[in-house]
Amino acid sequence: MDGIPRGWAGVRTLPWYVAGSQVLGVTCVVITGVWMGHYYGGYAWDGSSQQFNVHPLCMVLGLVFLYGDGVLVYRVFRNESKRSVKILHALLHMMALIISIVGLVAVFDYHNSSNIPNMYSLHSWCGMLTFVLFFLQWLLGLAFFLFPWASTLLRSWYLPLHIFFGLVLLAMAVGSSLMGITEKLLFSSQSSSSKLAPEAALANVLGLLLVCFVILVGFVVSREEFRRPPNPEEEALSVHFNTLGEGSGPSSP
Amino acid sequence: MDGIPRGWAGVRTLPWYVAGSQVLGVTCVVITGVWMGHYYGGYAWDGSSQQFNVHPLCMVLGLVFLYGDGVLVYRVFRNESKRSVKILHALLHMMALIISIVGLVAVFDYHNSSNIPNMYSLHSWCGMLTFVLFFLQWLLGLAFFLFPWASTLLRSWYLPLHIFFGLVLLAMAVGSSLMGITEKLLFSSQSSSSKLAPEAALANVLGLLLVCFVILVGFVVSREEFRRPPNPEEEALSVHFNTLGEGSGPSSP
Repeated sequence: MDGIPRGWAGVRTLPWYVAGSQVLGVTCVVITGVWMGHYYGGYAWDGSSQQFNVHPLCMVLGLVFLYGDGVLVYRVFRNESKRSVKILHALLHMMALIISIVGLVAVFDYHNSSNIPNMYSLHSWCGMLTFVLFFLQWLLGLAFFLFPWASTLLRSWYLPLHIFFGLVLLAMAVGSSLMGITEKLLFSSQSSSSKLAPEAALANVLGLLLVCFVILVGFVVSREEFRRPPNPEEEALSVHFNTLGEGSGPSSP
Repeated sequence: MDGIPRGWAGVRTLPWYVAGSQVLGVTCVVITGVWMGHYYGGYAWDGSSQQFNVHPLCMVLGLVFLYGDGVLVYRVFRNESKRSVKILHALLHMMALIISIVGLVAVFDYHNSSNIPNMYSLHSWCGMLTFVLFFLQWLLGLAFFLFPWASTLLRSWYLPLHIFFGLVLLAMAVGSSLMGITEKLLFSSQSSSSKLAPEAALANVLGLLLVCFVILVGFVVSREEFRRPPNPEEEALSVHFNTLGEGSGPSSP
């Protein structure tokens, strides 16, 4: 990539892209909160439709925003020790997992108490698949990159798959959210069509912002210039601590 | 990536992934055709609901299957001349564009003749955005890579963006399709809920297969091992023909 104009995408522009992603992510969470709060009567945990409202908020906060931020830490903390960044990555994704579980329990609980069947829509199929694969990917990441069980060879083999499916799952989470928005708007148009126009505009804007968020995270992660610079000292150390699970440069994300 | 076990993803496995993507892609087109044909009375071009049925078929055929195949040609024809592959890439995407336009005209025409408002759903917003960006990306690709207007520097700058947004647009096309499936099932459940169960299962399977198709295409395109091998002869030639628009190795997709 030598000799290519880098001004617009050189490493100095990275903070702007990251800041943009955070503004987008927080805006998505706030819009979801306002949408459920203003149009559907806020939040509760009593099997009522207010309990359903916990579901979209938790999924956007956990499986989209926090998940995306967990992906970004390797680009944001480019000069911190790799082990610290790995732990932060695992912790953010653990928070994302816990919040997603709360969001899933909320909707199953609401369905069961209202006699609505579970897992019949494409939204639920894709969303559940995303959650299960995310949980598996988190366990595999823990086993391969944080604990000393996997050899350097196995880590190097799994790393590109972990990164690829990490982005795929973020895209699947956003895709599932878009179907969720579509369902919610169609269900609500059956009961009260007078309120639909401004609500639909708000929800559609939320959908577009979610798409922008995943594109921006994908862009930051896939640009060559934004990668962690190789750290010879860390790599030399990692040879000694390899069996303790520190891993060498190319064998940990 | 030296010293990594490549058996499962070395270049010899490429034909299997490509064959898998073709089986998935054709299955998606066939299921869409059967879904609209069997459950909604087939196809027509008379402003009736049978004209609507042309829309999903054209979008899955054009904006997903043919678009995805246009992306794959650089991996399938790894040893053909780069100029031939570029022309095939442009032609496949031109076919995808034309078929998408037929699909869009079909739904606008049907809406107008049935007094259904256009462009109110998130599906339509995302779908139209995908189509417009695809058209722009196709024009830019033509201008930058097939015609001699752009310098090698400009081509090298645009190439990673062209590849990144190429995959983003395929994912957006599939995301829009998933919302379209969700809408269609919810609309049809209002009128005849008895038919829903097998129809919903078929449509949900279609959604999952579309997701598998985009993941497989993304995997094939992003794997290092599947890239075109550098061709020194072609690159030496391209220095002479640079001003004729042949482009050097790294400056054309």
